[in-house]
Amino acid sequence: MSCRSEILSFFSIARSSRLASLRYNETMSLVVVGSVAYDGVETPHGKVERMLGGACTYIALSASYFTSPKIVAVVGDDFDAADRELLASRGIDLEGLELADGKTFFWQGVYSEDMNDRTTLRTDLNVFATFSPKLPEVYKSQPYLFLGNIQPALQKQVFAQMANLRFCGGDTMNFWINDFRQELLATIADWNFLLINDSEAKLLSGESNLRKAAARIMAMGPKNLVIKRGEYGAMLFRPDSLFMVPGYLLESVFDPTGAGDCFAGGFVGYLAERGFDLKGEIDPHELHRAVIYGSVMGSFCCEKFGVDRFRTLTRQEIDARFEDFRKFTAF
Amino acid sequence: MSCRSEILSFFSIARSSRLASLRYNETMSLVVVGSVAYDGVETPHGKVERMLGGACTYIALSASYFTSPKIVAVVGDDFDAADRELLASRGIDLEGLELADGKTFFWQGVYSEDMNDRTTLRTDLNVFATFSPKLPEVYKSQPYLFLGNIQPALQKQVFAQMANLRFCGGDTMNFWINDFRQELLATIADWNFLLINDSEAKLLSGESNLRKAAARIMAMGPKNLVIKRGEYGAMLFRPDSLFMVPGYLLESVFDPTGAGDCFAGGFVGYLAERGFDLKGEIDPHELHRAVIYGSVMGSFCCEKFGVDRFRTLTRQEIDARFEDFRKFTAF
Repeated sequence: MSCRSEILSFFSIARSSRLASLRYNETMSLVVVGSVAYDGVETPHGKVERMLGGACTYIALSASYFTSPKIVAVVGDDFDAADRELLASRGIDLEGLELADGKTFFWQGVYSEDMNDRTTLRTDLNVFATFSPKLPEVYKSQPYLFLGNIQPALQKQVFAQMANLRFCGGDTMNFWINDFRQELLATIADWNFLLINDSEAKLLSGESNLRKAAARIMAMGPKNLVIKRGEYGAMLFRPDSLFMVPGYLLESVFDPTGAGDCFAGGFVGYLAERGFDLKGEIDPHELHRAVIYGSVMGSFCCEKFGVDRFRTLTRQEIDARFEDFRKFTAF
Repeated sequence: MSCRSEILSFFSIARSSRLASLRYNETMSLVVVGSVAYDGVETPHGKVERMLGGACTYIALSASYFTSPKIVAVVGDDFDAADRELLASRGIDLEGLELADGKTFFWQGVYSEDMNDRTTLRTDLNVFATFSPKLPEVYKSQPYLFLGNIQPALQKQVFAQMANLRFCGGDTMNFWINDFRQELLATIADWNFLLINDSEAKLLSGESNLRKAAARIMAMGPKNLVIKRGEYGAMLFRPDSLFMVPGYLLESVFDPTGAGDCFAGGFVGYLAERGFDLKGEIDPHELHRAVIYGSVMGSFCCEKFGVDRFRTLTRQEIDARFEDFRKFTAF
């Protein structure tokens, strides 16, 4: 190699690694805020006394097939090294996982025979009761943010610390909609997207018709509204379009815990992987595909108890199921 | 025009009209058996004391946008000339509409606030109690047959009289599934397709998982199984494939009465319009499109009370909504 070509080669390596790092920052970093917990779950297929759970856990595990999520959460001193290891093994950044004195959030529930209903038997908030999200410095410059279902004022506080956001949104629930309505409205006003289920959409909007409900919610802020309908699929509303997908039909649903969160992780993870076009916009068809990836990830989640499916799941299986969706919706 | 060209012209006219009539017989004749009734309906949008209804009515009206249905049903001496005229104006053959002494079948029901449930207030079977389908001779050579929800033994009796069937199937309900199970199994064993809703599919199969339920039902006979899920859409199971479509999202549902029957009419009507390929088979994609046309017709039905939407609906509107389905399911 001549001197000149060595120099050229040096520059091209330097340039391509700078591009790679830019590309990493531009497209690969998603911050997820929410609960990391232990769950006790009973379904018609079995019972597990205590296993890793929590919305942040499911969202991050699901998104980890598309990007490298950075989580913000709190656990107690009972948090198992093996569970930390599972998250790390999926490339999840744990710098924002705070270790507090006390016990990890614990939730216990039992599902009905058809698994469309569940009853909460026990909720011990433990260290989660005083959770105040603390963002490591490097998190604050990331472009993607998913705010899991926590108090709206905390969601807003995290949002305010993010300096470089390009696509931000999250989840909420009936408790915040009913009892923290003004806080919630002030919070979601800043969001690009909101992911909720159909009953939450009706509650938030005061409208029983989903088209009308969606129009009201988009007027509150989020211009990308994903309404999840459990086994019946999901819908993406935007001011000028509607996209709908039926649910994936599984042979067996072992445990639906976390399916909605895995949907969220697939949705936002795929978008973080794809990034924006040169005008800083997202192609609407990429949003449609993100809904499909969300559906795919939610369906895998149900195939085993808790997070177990993510111990073996591969990207190849995910992409194959994405193609299944094409096949069974083509006409 | 020379004599020779006149003769040629005569032959070509004779030939093309023979072909047209063959094509008519091959692709355009559907026999529909079921109830023609009067309904009293109350929904959150209003109340109608008495209006034209009945499964056969809805199926035939819906199918009339694709083919020329021939109905087999019975009405009483109170049947209104204007209602007969509506059916005739849509090209429906009424030769098989028997006029009996007594009153027409009357059903009255009220819908819940969200219209997902309805309560029957009154069922006067009247002349329908002794309905014994009588097929005019010309009906017996038709290739398409839809057996509406009547006693399975009567469905079988009609089937036995059809000499030239190419695609046959129908509907049933929980009452026949529970109390006439053996009769029903003997009946559907002959069918090419069965259209039922998800709770009926679970009841008939004894399986709560729809994939497993579908496999069991296909083993009973019908190799094309359409499972309707109301507002959530529909699915078509075949031994080697699955097709799913979400429900059309209406701004307002005025009256869901007859929507399932209109789905059936759109499904089988479209197939009768398209006909079979040269090998006597139906392209699976035509079956998928038939499910979409079924969904389209079911959605239109809900837009007004009773059959009112069919007084103004055009094929252009139907095809435009079919394209809407493409738009909101593309990814």
